[in-house]
Amino acid sequence: MDRLIEAIERTGNPSVVGLDPTDAVVPTAIAAGLEREVRDSVEAEELPASLRAVAYLEFCRAIIDAVADVVPAVKPQIAMFEALGPAGLDSYALTCAHARERGLYVIGDVKRGDIGSTATAYARHLTGVPVADPAGTPGGHAAAPEGSGMGRAPSHEGSTDAVEPTHAVDVWGEDAITVNPYLGSDGVTPFVRAAETTDKDLFVLVRTSNPSSAEIQECELADGRPLYERVADLVGEWGSGSIGRHGYSRVGAVVGATQADQGALLRRRMPHAFFLVPGYGAQGGTARDIARMADPRGSGILVNSSRGIIGAWRGSGEERPGMPLDAALDMVARHARRAAIAMREDIRTALKDRGRPSAPGRR
Amino acid sequence: MDRLIEAIERTGNPSVVGLDPTDAVVPTAIAAGLEREVRDSVEAEELPASLRAVAYLEFCRAIIDAVADVVPAVKPQIAMFEALGPAGLDSYALTCAHARERGLYVIGDVKRGDIGSTATAYARHLTGVPVADPAGTPGGHAAAPEGSGMGRAPSHEGSTDAVEPTHAVDVWGEDAITVNPYLGSDGVTPFVRAAETTDKDLFVLVRTSNPSSAEIQECELADGRPLYERVADLVGEWGSGSIGRHGYSRVGAVVGATQADQGALLRRRMPHAFFLVPGYGAQGGTARDIARMADPRGSGILVNSSRGIIGAWRGSGEERPGMPLDAALDMVARHARRAAIAMREDIRTALKDRGRPSAPGRR
Repeated sequence: MDRLIEAIERTGNPSVVGLDPTDAVVPTAIAAGLEREVRDSVEAEELPASLRAVAYLEFCRAIIDAVADVVPAVKPQIAMFEALGPAGLDSYALTCAHARERGLYVIGDVKRGDIGSTATAYARHLTGVPVADPAGTPGGHAAAPEGSGMGRAPSHEGSTDAVEPTHAVDVWGEDAITVNPYLGSDGVTPFVRAAETTDKDLFVLVRTSNPSSAEIQECELADGRPLYERVADLVGEWGSGSIGRHGYSRVGAVVGATQADQGALLRRRMPHAFFLVPGYGAQGGTARDIARMADPRGSGILVNSSRGIIGAWRGSGEERPGMPLDAALDMVARHARRAAIAMREDIRTALKDRGRPSAPGRR
Repeated sequence: MDRLIEAIERTGNPSVVGLDPTDAVVPTAIAAGLEREVRDSVEAEELPASLRAVAYLEFCRAIIDAVADVVPAVKPQIAMFEALGPAGLDSYALTCAHARERGLYVIGDVKRGDIGSTATAYARHLTGVPVADPAGTPGGHAAAPEGSGMGRAPSHEGSTDAVEPTHAVDVWGEDAITVNPYLGSDGVTPFVRAAETTDKDLFVLVRTSNPSSAEIQECELADGRPLYERVADLVGEWGSGSIGRHGYSRVGAVVGATQADQGALLRRRMPHAFFLVPGYGAQGGTARDIARMADPRGSGILVNSSRGIIGAWRGSGEERPGMPLDAALDMVARHARRAAIAMREDIRTALKDRGRPSAPGRR
């Protein structure tokens, strides 16, 4: 988690912009401006998905460029891209790559979780695709031919720095991902190992911000605890071997802003887990609520806002029929930047106010 | 669930072949045989992912062709394809499409789960990508130009039957998907609605087959039940509005074969939930265990085997260095077919034996 924490310190801003493009939040003018180009390059049946995929990518790139010096991180939501089929996932990977080029820490909001070899496959989000055949392949495989991309390192190996970590191609471009804990340790430890070998991180869902999250997460256990506390304890165990120089492990926790009391308790229960906090703004969580989840130094939290930033243009009244592509992208970018700065100030103020006599019980 | 149940009746076989390609299970000769072609069409850095993606697709197609008249369904595991980045997901979608062309019911093992608009985005696995702008788009959008793939139906609409359901393009090609319940109803009901509008289904993780599944799923609740029973009850609620002509709802349950006693109890607890049962064979679950999860008619279960079918070639000693591509595919196909038939007979026998006096307590 050290890279994230240092990026937060550098920007003085513990917030992350959620990149969740949808038809509702991407101005129609963006797809309209790209349509001729896309139409000429795909089959008619592919147009609805491909056009959205290209529009979502342009939209996200504009936002990334607009906020790159304001925030430490972005959080692309893979579901929005996956909704478009394979074409959308190309855009997702290109969005991650663009954010990285702009120096941002990229949290892939993928919420994956599975067992054994399947979890290891999902963990390739962090480890990438091996260039050489993985060691220990069972089954007495025949030797691969010279230069095979599967069986051996190709001849360009060592001549490019785009391949990282060594002997793997980072096909997704994320610095961290979110993980679902329902399958237990088998479903999580492959991600922990992957994070350790690649200097990356994960955030395990502990207490989500949605209304029905209580149905399962708040189930009262026989010992009186709610289930999410059991998950919190597991998060502590999973992260215990990877605590970095700032006191936080590679295994963070997703804790919604809408449960501030629980969040403040969870902060004490998981002292080494960095919190990714959804639910600010549109879902009702305030900066003051969230500040209660910070540690005594004001660290330990990264607050997400998606619609409040990427959809900030919608309140402006600037959208016009027949708007040129560049004007639409500029509109999105200006309002996103302004909203990201306002959010930064809101959270900074709330973190400062924590220590004041007027809010003595706030910590 | 009616389409699946009728496919099971037609084939007399309640089993599904899990398509989980990995480097360990795909013969090296397949990638080697495809390498020249792939190398000429991609950048050097893309070779490791693209070569595997093409090899996995050829491997899965060979298996699908070999078992299409033996089993009612296949279950591609998206993680194995996602491990290769966007190129892998192209192969996943093409694998699903090929299985459907061969008349198979396709269960996408995606284990997705998220909230609100994000869950709705994942539910596009079932609903596809809308051709026209979704109704009710907020934000006072400017009108899209004529013929836009996002804003209006393109001119080819109505001239192709490849677009299904009406006004949407089915970009993934699945008939059902698996869903993770940790986020509660908000995370599941968008999939239920999607299944209802498209005549598709979902399987919610209730009790998985992995060793550590107990850590969370077996947590004892204050009322004495384990957590998975709470989830089972939710599955019953989520499915109550979509019970089909065979007595099963669109909301099935994943119940591992390795917990047969719990499975038999869950059958009674969820009388309208069809069970997708992993854990047969390689993970230790026997047909006899699984038969206990069937309903009195011997229905209600679909048993998955992955490695036992797709990796059956590995025990044959037929793999040779420098083996031609076609020979490798033929080897994979022959052994997969033989293993699928053996599994069918094993399960048929176990289901028949249930009613016999020698096993009176088996139901």
